[in-house]
Amino acid sequence: MKVKAYGVETPEENLKPLNIERRQLTAKDVHIKIEYCGVCHSDIHTVRNDWGGSKYPVIPGHEIIGRVVEVGSDVKNFKPGQRVGVGCMVDSCGTCPSCQDDLEQFCEERMVGTYNGKDKHSGGHTYGGYSQDIVVDEHFVLNIPENIDPKGTAPLLCAGITTWSPLKHWNIKKGDKVGVIGLGGLGHMGIKFANALGAHVVMITRSESKSKDAKSLGAHEVLISTDKDEMKKHKNSFDFLLNTIPVKHDLNPYLSLLKRDKTICLVGAIEPLEPMHGGSVIAGRKRVSGSLIGGIKETQEMLDFCGEHNITCDVEMIDIQNINTAYDRVTSSDVKYRFVIDMESLN
Amino acid sequence: MKVKAYGVETPEENLKPLNIERRQLTAKDVHIKIEYCGVCHSDIHTVRNDWGGSKYPVIPGHEIIGRVVEVGSDVKNFKPGQRVGVGCMVDSCGTCPSCQDDLEQFCEERMVGTYNGKDKHSGGHTYGGYSQDIVVDEHFVLNIPENIDPKGTAPLLCAGITTWSPLKHWNIKKGDKVGVIGLGGLGHMGIKFANALGAHVVMITRSESKSKDAKSLGAHEVLISTDKDEMKKHKNSFDFLLNTIPVKHDLNPYLSLLKRDKTICLVGAIEPLEPMHGGSVIAGRKRVSGSLIGGIKETQEMLDFCGEHNITCDVEMIDIQNINTAYDRVTSSDVKYRFVIDMESLN
Repeated sequence: MKVKAYGVETPEENLKPLNIERRQLTAKDVHIKIEYCGVCHSDIHTVRNDWGGSKYPVIPGHEIIGRVVEVGSDVKNFKPGQRVGVGCMVDSCGTCPSCQDDLEQFCEERMVGTYNGKDKHSGGHTYGGYSQDIVVDEHFVLNIPENIDPKGTAPLLCAGITTWSPLKHWNIKKGDKVGVIGLGGLGHMGIKFANALGAHVVMITRSESKSKDAKSLGAHEVLISTDKDEMKKHKNSFDFLLNTIPVKHDLNPYLSLLKRDKTICLVGAIEPLEPMHGGSVIAGRKRVSGSLIGGIKETQEMLDFCGEHNITCDVEMIDIQNINTAYDRVTSSDVKYRFVIDMESLN
Repeated sequence: MKVKAYGVETPEENLKPLNIERRQLTAKDVHIKIEYCGVCHSDIHTVRNDWGGSKYPVIPGHEIIGRVVEVGSDVKNFKPGQRVGVGCMVDSCGTCPSCQDDLEQFCEERMVGTYNGKDKHSGGHTYGGYSQDIVVDEHFVLNIPENIDPKGTAPLLCAGITTWSPLKHWNIKKGDKVGVIGLGGLGHMGIKFANALGAHVVMITRSESKSKDAKSLGAHEVLISTDKDEMKKHKNSFDFLLNTIPVKHDLNPYLSLLKRDKTICLVGAIEPLEPMHGGSVIAGRKRVSGSLIGGIKETQEMLDFCGEHNITCDVEMIDIQNINTAYDRVTSSDVKYRFVIDMESLN
């Protein structure tokens, strides 16, 4: 079926209206009418081919909230009218050890991204959520609790799970001292989740100006990383550091903050970092790791937790016609903390 | 008491005979007549002040084997005539969480190094094992099984524990696929221990020429890290990587070898490494960590294990008068795999 969408046909152009073809429902599929779609920095990188390998047309969007229109004959867990979500993945092999461990994001045959992934059905590439409708395999569809605001729920599907998954994997619990480095789309969710899990949350930032916002989001303390005396006071004191910095940076000062045997987890920067000193991990047997979104099972657990604790992202709503201005503002970090497109505006 | 030693008074000179003062026995001390002392690359770095902060005179040596001469009135576990060892530490605070956890090497008030450490007794700095005698707090003295060759046992106190500790900490067990990167003093012990723990051991090296030696030490396979096809075949297959490379290097190719959630542990290079890509740890939630020698309790466990399995280091014996030639050969990696000084030559 043909549906309206927004995207680009080349890396140089602005986003514009495009018509795309969605597959007909198969027995395992859920057909979703999209209500809201979050704007992730990855959308911009893919549109502009910053990471290479983008396939055009690019229809971005992997923070999708909508309502079920129709389900295939084998679909068990969803029914028309139900509010659902789709995150960063729409397929995986289903049989490798990672898929079997409910960690489809680490599928050994590579997860299929919601956009610009290798589409097993069309043989081409996948199209994301800046569109009216999407058809997705039931396994990759999430149930959205009806009690939370669906607009602020959209970015949970990427920014939310990206911060939730490492906090759960490294078993953050009541009383742990957790540092969240960087206050953007990811960082603001890191603060909310770490707080909700009972941790003592320290927002770590270069900008004194972010102090007030950090505290209102749930940080108990703010540590200005350029203040050497303050950094020294917090040396060897953290149980976990969630590092959301999205650009090249120096890990060494942050490593000095960790207790022995504890972990700093990267979720923002995939590029080459500043040189790490071997001594920064040898002294104190510290750990540098990373985390990539999260599996479908834990994404559902996060959504259920958000329903129980009434947690959503702080968002600014836009119409799809303003997407190019929004991209400029994301690039200059001028958003608190995530744009969400009201997809009604596309009709 | 005055004892003969070998050391330097300035960073520029060669090692030469020096007389040093050892403290009189306190109630908790063990007085040891030194028989053998291993030559560690750290000795050379300290002599030459490569890391800064060296205090002169430097009397190196922290792989010490000897026999007990006399014990203080409160000493419980040692008696005259017993064969004992002293490794990299001779003191620590004893009360911080790391000391309480039997990890004195991570003492929050800093462990006292066997040489160039801050000596709590003299107020000056400590002198190492290139000498006739040493007086050490009982807690830092190790029992040496009588059935193993004491010459090859000396380097267990540094090269041995440095590789044993991470293999135990990361719980290496029968059937695990373990890569040992770099074949020198540390690497050759990594191979022996990983093999003895039942792992499938892969020696990872740039030098095809090291293949035969690696296999005779216990490696089941050799992976030439410059061979891209071979590296690709081993992608995502290792349970643990013990990284003994002692100089700046690029972690990214090695990270690609690890399975999801698995660790590469640095034990060689304390300097800045080549830039690591965030994506190298984010994809597969992989971990970079490090390890520093080992605690006294686990050093004793290693020595007992070596006694049971008849494991020692491969060593080349020298007289103390040849130490400067030995240093040149260590610097050019021309030793299999550790020099040990017969301290009898000092008398």
